[in-house]
Amino acid sequence: MSGIAATAILKEEVDIVIPTIRNLEFLEMWRAFLEPYHLIIVQDGDPSKLIKVPQGFDYELYNRNDITRILGPKAHCISFKDSACRCFGFLLSKKKYIFTIDDDCFVAKDPSGKEINALEQHLKNLLSPSTPFFFNTLYDPFREGTDFVRGYPFSLREGVPTAASHGLWLNIPDYDAPTQLVKPLERNTRYVDAVMTIPKGTLFPMCGMNLAFNRELIGPAMYFGLMGDGQPIGRYDDMWAGWCTKVISDHLGFGVKTGLPYIWHSKASNPFVNLKKEYKGIYWQEELIPFFQSVSLPKECTTAQKCYIELSKQVKAKLGKVDEYFNKLADSMETWIEAWEELNPSGAPKSDALPNGSAK
Amino acid sequence: MSGIAATAILKEEVDIVIPTIRNLEFLEMWRAFLEPYHLIIVQDGDPSKLIKVPQGFDYELYNRNDITRILGPKAHCISFKDSACRCFGFLLSKKKYIFTIDDDCFVAKDPSGKEINALEQHLKNLLSPSTPFFFNTLYDPFREGTDFVRGYPFSLREGVPTAASHGLWLNIPDYDAPTQLVKPLERNTRYVDAVMTIPKGTLFPMCGMNLAFNRELIGPAMYFGLMGDGQPIGRYDDMWAGWCTKVISDHLGFGVKTGLPYIWHSKASNPFVNLKKEYKGIYWQEELIPFFQSVSLPKECTTAQKCYIELSKQVKAKLGKVDEYFNKLADSMETWIEAWEELNPSGAPKSDALPNGSAK
Repeated sequence: MSGIAATAILKEEVDIVIPTIRNLEFLEMWRAFLEPYHLIIVQDGDPSKLIKVPQGFDYELYNRNDITRILGPKAHCISFKDSACRCFGFLLSKKKYIFTIDDDCFVAKDPSGKEINALEQHLKNLLSPSTPFFFNTLYDPFREGTDFVRGYPFSLREGVPTAASHGLWLNIPDYDAPTQLVKPLERNTRYVDAVMTIPKGTLFPMCGMNLAFNRELIGPAMYFGLMGDGQPIGRYDDMWAGWCTKVISDHLGFGVKTGLPYIWHSKASNPFVNLKKEYKGIYWQEELIPFFQSVSLPKECTTAQKCYIELSKQVKAKLGKVDEYFNKLADSMETWIEAWEELNPSGAPKSDALPNGSAK
Repeated sequence: MSGIAATAILKEEVDIVIPTIRNLEFLEMWRAFLEPYHLIIVQDGDPSKLIKVPQGFDYELYNRNDITRILGPKAHCISFKDSACRCFGFLLSKKKYIFTIDDDCFVAKDPSGKEINALEQHLKNLLSPSTPFFFNTLYDPFREGTDFVRGYPFSLREGVPTAASHGLWLNIPDYDAPTQLVKPLERNTRYVDAVMTIPKGTLFPMCGMNLAFNRELIGPAMYFGLMGDGQPIGRYDDMWAGWCTKVISDHLGFGVKTGLPYIWHSKASNPFVNLKKEYKGIYWQEELIPFFQSVSLPKECTTAQKCYIELSKQVKAKLGKVDEYFNKLADSMETWIEAWEELNPSGAPKSDALPNGSAK
């Protein structure tokens, strides 16, 4: 499918979700690619601060007051003062595809010097099947100029629907605080011209900086957890969502792709601040990974919602003993699904969730 | 590790195994990179035909008569009139690392126009650990300029020993006959600057054109089966070896990498001839893949040899009913291990296997 066709068809089916825009350059930089699309901005901090959105963008802006107004007693499941609040945008969207991006991510260039239309590549990834059951050595067989190689079983060549597309970053790599501290000058300059399906049964570290997904297939699993204000941990919001998304995609027979598109990650966050946010996560993850690697979901879990509720129970049963935090997180996972079902009754659009800053 | 260091250290630990050289240009093209190494050439057809090896190369040449002389009644396990005979070279080698390459594979260039030293990249891949238990989104974390990303468990960052390095091909892609017929003009022009570990539990189609491995770790699994003269199937020799290698590597805790280096694959083989060789494989593989995906090896299998013997039993028990061929193949797998143990007693060098064309 050509890029032009992909983006033209999908204009009305895509929302761009951005957690707080502190950087005025950000939207100007992306104007050529994102102006045609609808933006949902979720402000993570003080609601009295005003976010200036440049002329011409079609957007909704939600702050903490909106979250409280719309979700009422369920609002506690949305993180405060943390970019994890972006998942509120996933909840409110009524579109099929979500592209979420951070405000320190700019347009990258490919090796020929051409500006990369990240959204277009994400849509190509999401619109073509995934191949989680067998590895194709020439990577995504659905890209132009390539195919399945000799020895790839024909019965698996139809592929499965793609639930998520995980894009990468040139310049500042997505390192944890210890690696940032050890390698402060390392920059990612390697443009790897590949998209690939992460095999079934394999977990990966999903970064929320440059991420797209099919909301109908996997939206309910894209909960970014409890981070930031009042929580003992930060910078694991996207990781949590990624592990949940991957085990649920594996169970439901969907694929997750990683690779292209690249964005230009402009700014390394402060490694000392990051260390403070991460340090519990760094040892908790040693127990979380074996947990997610051994998660088994029953056959009755036929939707992402059902899978997620079941997962929340297993989190409580098996991770509650790691730390009390996981009991709270498990409760929030349930609340999140309740909110999802309230705001997305059989997929019908919800009109009473008007944002405070709608430009429409 | 720098490339120069890698190749200097390893000169005495590497054998280059080539199945028949029909193409005189081949070795000239590789002279700069391969002349310092020892070659083992295994002639696949008529022993009376003379293979001319250019001046300056250090080589041993084995033909069918040598195979019969050296293996005696076990010689039947080595394919005749098929490049699968290359595994005889793996058996005879006494080196730690093997690089095997086909005579229609030339030196490729990277995007900067520099000639690619395939062997050097293979050695880098083999000398650095693999990461089969969790996917790193910036690919091989042991390459220069990259590392493990945020969310990668620290306990897994040591990695595991790398058993095999699977290189790729520019120009003619490694397609099966049906794909060759459907896309006769497709060429691989995409240089993907990545090396990655194929996750544990995931099978892949291993191509023997451009392949390196650690013979001490996984040599006994690199049996290329029964192909060619008198066999009902061809072009599945490397696939078979790859599936066996991968399940055994997974069991023993070794890694398998794919990606760089590229070679330039100059010539597409005849798709009509290929179809004749492949057609049984194309439907058999639909049963082979589920078989290999479900193989479980007992804890007592602590070496590649033991794993391979156990695998041969499971092949006989479960694939014998697919076709009588698999009973014969299972017997040959056992014979192969007997030959391996005879020629490699506790790793001691064997001096009585003199080739007919040694230049030494």
